Amino acid sequence: MRQSTLFGKTKRENPRDEESQNAILLIRAGFIDKLGAGIYSFLPLGLLVLRKIENIVREEIKAIGGQEILMPALHPKENWEKTNRWAHFDALFKLKGYGEKDYALGATHEEIVSPLATKFVFSYKDLPFYLFQIQTKFRNEPRAKSGLLRCREFLMKDLYSFHTDNADLDNYYEKVIIAYKNIFKKCGLEKNTYLTLASGGSFSKYSHEFQTISQAGEDTIYICQKCHLAINKEIKEENPFCPQCQGKDFKETSAIEVGNIFKLGTKYSAPFDLKYKDEKGEEKTVIMGCYGLGPTRLIGAVAEIFHDDRGLIWPENIAPFKYHLLVLGENEKIQKEADKFYEKMIALGQKVLYDDRKISIGEKFADADLIGLPYRLVISEKTLQQKSLEIKKRHEQKTELIKLNRAINKLK
Amino acid sequence: MRQSTLFGKTKRENPRDEESQNAILLIRAGFIDKLGAGIYSFLPLGLLVLRKIENIVREEIKAIGGQEILMPALHPKENWEKTNRWAHFDALFKLKGYGEKDYALGATHEEIVSPLATKFVFSYKDLPFYLFQIQTKFRNEPRAKSGLLRCREFLMKDLYSFHTDNADLDNYYEKVIIAYKNIFKKCGLEKNTYLTLASGGSFSKYSHEFQTISQAGEDTIYICQKCHLAINKEIKEENPFCPQCQGKDFKETSAIEVGNIFKLGTKYSAPFDLKYKDEKGEEKTVIMGCYGLGPTRLIGAVAEIFHDDRGLIWPENIAPFKYHLLVLGENEKIQKEADKFYEKMIALGQKVLYDDRKISIGEKFADADLIGLPYRLVISEKTLQQKSLEIKKRHEQKTELIKLNRAINKLK
Repeated sequence: MRQSTLFGKTKRENPRDEESQNAILLIRAGFIDKLGAGIYSFLPLGLLVLRKIENIVREEIKAIGGQEILMPALHPKENWEKTNRWAHFDALFKLKGYGEKDYALGATHEEIVSPLATKFVFSYKDLPFYLFQIQTKFRNEPRAKSGLLRCREFLMKDLYSFHTDNADLDNYYEKVIIAYKNIFKKCGLEKNTYLTLASGGSFSKYSHEFQTISQAGEDTIYICQKCHLAINKEIKEENPFCPQCQGKDFKETSAIEVGNIFKLGTKYSAPFDLKYKDEKGEEKTVIMGCYGLGPTRLIGAVAEIFHDDRGLIWPENIAPFKYHLLVLGENEKIQKEADKFYEKMIALGQKVLYDDRKISIGEKFADADLIGLPYRLVISEKTLQQKSLEIKKRHEQKTELIKLNRAINKLK
Repeated sequence: MRQSTLFGKTKRENPRDEESQNAILLIRAGFIDKLGAGIYSFLPLGLLVLRKIENIVREEIKAIGGQEILMPALHPKENWEKTNRWAHFDALFKLKGYGEKDYALGATHEEIVSPLATKFVFSYKDLPFYLFQIQTKFRNEPRAKSGLLRCREFLMKDLYSFHTDNADLDNYYEKVIIAYKNIFKKCGLEKNTYLTLASGGSFSKYSHEFQTISQAGEDTIYICQKCHLAINKEIKEENPFCPQCQGKDFKETSAIEVGNIFKLGTKYSAPFDLKYKDEKGEEKTVIMGCYGLGPTRLIGAVAEIFHDDRGLIWPENIAPFKYHLLVLGENEKIQKEADKFYEKMIALGQKVLYDDRKISIGEKFADADLIGLPYRLVISEKTLQQKSLEIKKRHEQKTELIKLNRAINKLK
């Protein structure tokens, strides 16, 4: 894309109403815009990142049998009353519609997916199955000062699994752990993200959170210095010893909860009478699991971790474009060469942001660093004298010249 | 996809709480599920259709320069007060958040996109540009009895254009008309859809609606029998003569409004002080246009128009799968041949729903008609005796045998 036509200019100044590093960088670089506390628009660059993360998530969840659906955000009050969460779910937005009808704005979808399943589950032969959606959630957060890490409106991938028995749920739960690890790896967060023990509610001893270590994180986790197990605050407070090796030396650190997985048992199937007939014709309640992951929060986590004082540094898999091509100098011949090279790259299906703007060299370099695409390509009078372009990785200092006639093949 | 694993079984009975043909058919065929009046979930088959329509819309809007963004659904009250629509917009859902903050649920996005644009528009050099999103809208509809034709929660493509002057807006407006025509053509609605004159508000004499003729439509349009111009009820009531040829013989018909386009002028730029400096350095107010199109409503319109008494009949471009492969008979050899054929099709990237279920032949045929994929392929003992499969188009009666060893090539 030609940067001269891109909507969402970079800003030299930090926004005045943001404290969090991720929001400051993403706003300055033109990825997002703030509408209100915890409420952001995604501009073209930001939406490209979001779609890439969505596709990574979709691919991995489909690979473990997930079928994609799309459930509504407007939830009838009755559904939330059945599980006793109308009164007790923190941060549920509530509103009235025509005829004084009460709705909740979907903060999660157990109250919708369970009654949906009742319409299609009759026999053990209908189980197991796995439904997921990538959908907008709403939470009436009292504090929303962490940019994309805690929003009042955000995107979530929520997956729900339905089983005849606990063994089948346990088996699928392990598959989800692997899928989540693949997702975080593809998003560049592999090294920083810990599978963390959390309490399991009434049905299971433990659930798990995926916690990405970051000073910006609102959670605290404890890493056992003996066996490297991570546990969350609740678990730590219940038991001063490591649940795995009984060690008592922990490293405390801030972390961002980027995912959580939970064995629900019959907690949300029982209230909706979600039952099946087993092989003997006996009625039994369906066993469920739920698995959350926030694509918008993930962008915030990536921005917190991958940046320097000049701007963002996108992992290649989720960068809005792979290459940032800069043409330096207003000489018509240079422009023409750069145009030609850009058109060739595009014709080959390469993802290139082309800075064709009539602005100073310094501004172009500053913007390239701020936006943070993986590879910066420069075509200038100097590089053309050697029939070359200059290539530099965003997170490295060294530059390299590549002959123009070889560059197309080399950059594949 | 193997139908034995597909979530969303077909239903033999009509749902009891639906009056509209589109909802009845789409629910029975397993495309959607009703959560409440005007609120539906999209099941796997329905979501596949929705994504295809979204991609058609995206492609056409990008082709006329649209840049995709994603704006929030939670709108601060202040934005809607600036345009005086907090009090006067029909069907605006309102709610309170933490700290007694008032929000509207986005019913349209002029109140969001205009202040967003102020952050990036300074000079005439920043214009024109075109922003669109495919996003969930909410409207507190008093009547929501027409299935996907009038929802309280629905998907909308909303495009906004920003110009220095009216001539530029007029020029872009004509481009949008062509893009919309392309979209409706690709969705199979070309013949039934009329570009219809509607009133233009204070800024322009006319706006336009795209109206698809259907008995299920909630609108009424009038087609001039002399020049074939279509006009809506408002225009007809203002003037008994055709605005184009002065004819007075009209055909009255029900229609579904599948799109509308509007020259806004400065109606939403002025309240937000959306200005630019022209070439002389003078401040001027930006001229805007807005262009709506509802992908979920489009599904409803297609279902209303393309069905018979046995079920849906999807236009090929937006069908969830192109082929419905049925294996008939439980003989292991037949099953094996069908499996083999299915695997080959999938390996070639073909979109096939494979009815591998152990149910009666009658049920399989009935489901194929109800779901309504463009081509039904049958492999049975009878077809295998001739080393063939049987192919039939959903909307035709005649069947044809194709030799299995040629079918893969022929079905490309």
